Amino acid sequence: MKRSRKDYIFSLEFKVRDYECDLQGVVNNANYQHYLEHARHEFLVSRGISFARLHEEGTDLVVTRIEINYKYPLRSRDRFVVKLNLRREGHLRLVFEQAVFRLPDEKLIAEAEVTGVATRNGRPVSPGNIVSILGI
Amino acid sequence: MKRSRKDYIFSLEFKVRDYECDLQGVVNNANYQHYLEHARHEFLVSRGISFARLHEEGTDLVVTRIEINYKYPLRSRDRFVVKLNLRREGHLRLVFEQAVFRLPDEKLIAEAEVTGVATRNGRPVSPGNIVSILGI
Amino acid sequence: MKRSRKDYIFSLEFKVRDYECDLQGVVNNANYQHYLEHARHEFLVSRGISFARLHEEGTDLVVTRIEINYKYPLRSRDRFVVKLNLRREGHLRLVFEQAVFRLPDEKLIAEAEVTGVATRNGRPVSPGNIVSILGI
Amino acid sequence: MKRSRKDYIFSLEFKVRDYECDLQGVVNNANYQHYLEHARHEFLVSRGISFARLHEEGTDLVVTRIEINYKYPLRSRDRFVVKLNLRREGHLRLVFEQAVFRLPDEKLIAEAEVTGVATRNGRPVSPGNIVSILGI
Repeated sequence: MKRSRKDYIFSLEFKVRDYECDLQGVVNNANYQHYLEHARHEFLVSRGISFARLHEEGTDLVVTRIEINYKYPLRSRDRFVVKLNLRREGHLRLVFEQAVFRLPDEKLIAEAEVTGVATRNGRPVSPGNIVSILGI
Repeated sequence: MKRSRKDYIFSLEFKVRDYECDLQGVVNNANYQHYLEHARHEFLVSRGISFARLHEEGTDLVVTRIEINYKYPLRSRDRFVVKLNLRREGHLRLVFEQAVFRLPDEKLIAEAEVTGVATRNGRPVSPGNIVSILGI
Repeated sequence: MKRSRKDYIFSLEFKVRDYECDLQGVVNNANYQHYLEHARHEFLVSRGISFARLHEEGTDLVVTRIEINYKYPLRSRDRFVVKLNLRREGHLRLVFEQAVFRLPDEKLIAEAEVTGVATRNGRPVSPGNIVSILGI
Repeated sequence: MKRSRKDYIFSLEFKVRDYECDLQGVVNNANYQHYLEHARHEFLVSRGISFARLHEEGTDLVVTRIEINYKYPLRSRDRFVVKLNLRREGHLRLVFEQAVFRLPDEKLIAEAEVTGVATRNGRPVSPGNIVSILGI
């Protein structure tokens, strides 16, 4: 998961909402999955692919593996950006490399690698159409 | 993360709540982190360690890395169990091996490895006290 | 919303999970809606009505109004029970009276009144079938 | 809760995130409390009052009552705005009138009235300082 910051192909800015913080006063770990997911979906939308519409058409994008390395906590009202890159792995898997940087100081908060597949009726299918739209 | 099912030292039963499902009709990926966290905290409590009280006393247990392999989705009202095991890694790290099995058929739903450290004032400290209580 | 405690027709026990607490160290207000919803859905299931299956069949149970009076906060690991009663209001509305009591001391934590309607294609329909099953 | 749209003193724009939708394909009711809370906290911040800092200083702003009237559901990726107004009620209570409008068509999605008090050590205290800052 080593990657220089300039390589990311998409980024989305967020701000911590107080309800996302837990009794330790920092953003609860699970909320990073929400941030990462929202950034992926917004990326797909920016390329014309809607997660919700795909679902209605019978194709689901499904996460099969996630790895998150937490470096430093986000706190109430911190601004941050989620960046992502994407590569294909084998015939079926899409791998998103994502990172969270606090703003404005760009401190690295977390790095993640998220593997997804496309499924129809619960079975993996080639993400061919999606891949060709994404150009990877 | 290979481990036979009998090796786990703690397990906790849950039931999917409808609000945990997303528009795909399955439990949203981030909620597995909630389930895993709750099982870890209940395990600690079963050994006399309160996450909330530790925080009040100035020590935070912090997740530094999580890896989740999603095998099969949970759906509305599924019953399931989260199991865990624990090992020490180096001086500072505690590693939880966790797995989610659907009930009653014990189908493997997800496997996770969660690394944590104890911190005081944001700096890692030896989890010696915790380790001696846990007997690892 | 005055009601003696013995009048409730359904109750469900919960335990606070740490991730449900926010930076004030108490359960975040929004989570009470989750608790109340889960109790309603489990009540319906206990009478043979599945919220998820209804949705698949084209009927949605939809909340049109909620009122919650917060009396006292729940904290990390508190046990509590959500109780409910149900009445019909006019032709279309079902009104759930719900209350949250901490255990074991039965301290009143919150009271709520939740109004729902059944909809098909986004339009309210008579909940006749549901009402006859529920016997109200 | 009748109020013409021009009267609001603060508004904050949001976009639905897919994880906020439940298995009905619409935003889960509890998430509206998150939206409403975040708008209130951002309003307070815009006036120089930090919810998190107040907590650290021993004063908590606590919701004692919430009423939400749900008019129309938000769906995946809808843009919307949360507006608010504020009045004092008696010596102790602050009442926020809030409304959610979908964008760009300004369709009314939900209206809410949220009553809060300031507490120290769990007891209501005069929000005098806060009130004078807010100028109400």
